[in-house]
Amino acid sequence: MEGRTVSGAIIDGKAFAAGLRERVAAAVPTFVEAAGRPPGLAVVLVGEDPASQVYVRSKGKATIAAGMASFEHRLPVETSQAELIDLVARLNADDAVDGILVQLPLPPQIDEGAVIDAIDPAKDVDGFHIANAGRLATGLPGFVPCTPLGCLMLLKGRLGELAGLDAVVIGRSNIVGKPMARLLLNESCTVTVAHSRTRDLPSLVRRADIVVAAAGRPEMVKGDWLKPGATVIDVGINRIDAGEGKTRLVGDVDFASAVEVAGAITPVPGGVGPMTIAVLLRNTLVAAHIRAGLVPPAGL
Amino acid sequence: MEGRTVSGAIIDGKAFAAGLRERVAAAVPTFVEAAGRPPGLAVVLVGEDPASQVYVRSKGKATIAAGMASFEHRLPVETSQAELIDLVARLNADDAVDGILVQLPLPPQIDEGAVIDAIDPAKDVDGFHIANAGRLATGLPGFVPCTPLGCLMLLKGRLGELAGLDAVVIGRSNIVGKPMARLLLNESCTVTVAHSRTRDLPSLVRRADIVVAAAGRPEMVKGDWLKPGATVIDVGINRIDAGEGKTRLVGDVDFASAVEVAGAITPVPGGVGPMTIAVLLRNTLVAAHIRAGLVPPAGL
Ligand SMILES: NC(=O)c1ccc[n+]([C@@H]2O[C@H](COP(=O)([O-])OP(=O)(O)OC[C@H]3O[C@@H](n4cnc5c(N)ncnc54)[C@H](OP(=O)(O)O)[C@@H]3O)[C@@H](O)[C@H]2O)c1
Ligand SMILES: NC(=O)c1ccc[n+]([C@@H]2O[C@H](COP(=O)([O-])OP(=O)(O)OC[C@H]3O[C@@H](n4cnc5c(N)ncnc54)[C@H](OP(=O)(O)O)[C@@H]3O)[C@@H](O)[C@H]2O)c1
Repeated sequence: MEGRTVSGAIIDGKAFAAGLRERVAAAVPTFVEAAGRPPGLAVVLVGEDPASQVYVRSKGKATIAAGMASFEHRLPVETSQAELIDLVARLNADDAVDGILVQLPLPPQIDEGAVIDAIDPAKDVDGFHIANAGRLATGLPGFVPCTPLGCLMLLKGRLGELAGLDAVVIGRSNIVGKPMARLLLNESCTVTVAHSRTRDLPSLVRRADIVVAAAGRPEMVKGDWLKPGATVIDVGINRIDAGEGKTRLVGDVDFASAVEVAGAITPVPGGVGPMTIAVLLRNTLVAAHIRAGLVPPAGL
Repeated sequence: MEGRTVSGAIIDGKAFAAGLRERVAAAVPTFVEAAGRPPGLAVVLVGEDPASQVYVRSKGKATIAAGMASFEHRLPVETSQAELIDLVARLNADDAVDGILVQLPLPPQIDEGAVIDAIDPAKDVDGFHIANAGRLATGLPGFVPCTPLGCLMLLKGRLGELAGLDAVVIGRSNIVGKPMARLLLNESCTVTVAHSRTRDLPSLVRRADIVVAAAGRPEMVKGDWLKPGATVIDVGINRIDAGEGKTRLVGDVDFASAVEVAGAITPVPGGVGPMTIAVLLRNTLVAAHIRAGLVPPAGL
């Protein structure tokens, strides 16, 4: 399942994500027949953060569009940690639920780590549980965070075999940078992780065949930082002032200059962004199969 | 607790380890007074591998020398996985046991991962359990494998603050290379992981302020690969032919040429080697404190 949806130097994440969502949806009927129920994804939202509400809504819509069951749980902003962990425990015990996603960030009275580690690792489709982080870190199969796994799919779709390539990951968060570095290491790239304390980022980037930018710094990576022909994955989503009271989205890469040098590059929007939900559906489908004692379909 | 035991360009791991063992031993009486029992380390050996027997014996001796209790369990080579996991369960339940170490490798009928994950993570003083790998991977406190933690102590003892330094780790095993890279990333080094698929190792090494060699390749890293002044930690322990039917131990670094260029370097033997057991004792002391609800002593 290569799904090469590349046009010129632009990696079309939207088309790649649509292809993945189609493959997931196509596999659902077979699962329903074997298991007697659809795969189910439970999404928990605490409070009314507008961005989180948008995310939760689009996750729910995509879940249903793929033929899966979507369970939305909305709790008031003053929910206690114990109440939230109670809900997670009920979802853990609910056989109709294959995946549990607690939308972050959580209100300050709640310890995110404690909640995430209350999720059954077998239902941790976000891949944030310590057990899944440990499995990724030691090279064992497990659930991998959706955004970096989506980036890896785009890279393999574009480049095929990655072994031996020099990769630089800019950013070391637990949800993007660190799991991304681990995935690339498991693919036998020579991997460098850069971050805010890195001394000479431009010359580091200049050596890389693969650049994954996940720093949250608008248009930081310039075209003249790149090795000609490098493959650039731009994870950043930054809203900047566009003048006249308007705003627009840009990545962590200065697209205009980078597209002149890169061999291939993801745009923002329309690059990595659409992959995240598609991988979430994929992870849910995989979780459903494993929980039902079935072999997940190949090529996802 | 810097323990700067550096003489010229040679990092004296033996002296550093002796200092750490002394600090551990000095903290034991206070623990005994508070907890009413000594810290206890259980070491499990399956079969009669001569090298493993040597390791187990020296671990036991060092444990007792530090004033701790040592419990040795020797099982026949034909022990089944279920029997071994039964023993681990009894050690998990035994309140006198703070640390459990199952000596690797295990005979082929036993799945090492299954045995390690049967160990209570709170007693996993080797830091090999998936939960501890996940904690290290996500930057949470937990038990860290002894050899890389020992390397980090030597580096901090020599260099003090590591943030911003360029580090290359050669090797990506779960017991040395990968946890070493994570430790250095947590110290805010810019970290590159190299391995057998890496294309141009010499020029990668030439850029590094810190080189950790853990490839198991005798004298592979040459002096002219090094940036002048680099700090070199040689984890390798390789027995090579020394002629006339004799053998000798060498590291993964060609010491004779490297010592001319490096700012500081660990010898083999007498560098990283002695740190491993010292850190094991340190981890056991920490485990004992946490299990007893006590704050571990600072500066270990
Ligand atoms: N679906 C998606 O497409 C998706 C999903 C998640 C995130 N994102 C986007 O991806 C970006 C990163 O997200 P995140 O959650 O990983 O962010 P984060 O938690 O804020 O982490 C940012 C990382 O970038 C590093 N960094 C900051 N400034 C830097 C600089 N000048 N040079 C080099 N490194 C620098 C930081 O280093 P330190 O560790 O030293 O502070 C940190 O490790 C954001 O723009 C976010 O919106 C997109
Ligand atoms: N107490 C101690 O001092 C202590 C403790 C543990 C280990 N050691 C020693 O440390 C060394 C490494 O141990 P380990 O358990 O990590 O070994 P390991 O599991 O065999 O891993 C060796 C690593 O080195 C990489 N490698 C092999 N050849 C290479 C080459 N030519 N260039 C670059 N990388 C290469 C391998 O790459 P691939 O992954 O691509 O195969 C692998 O990741 C051994 O000499 C061992 O005896 C010492």
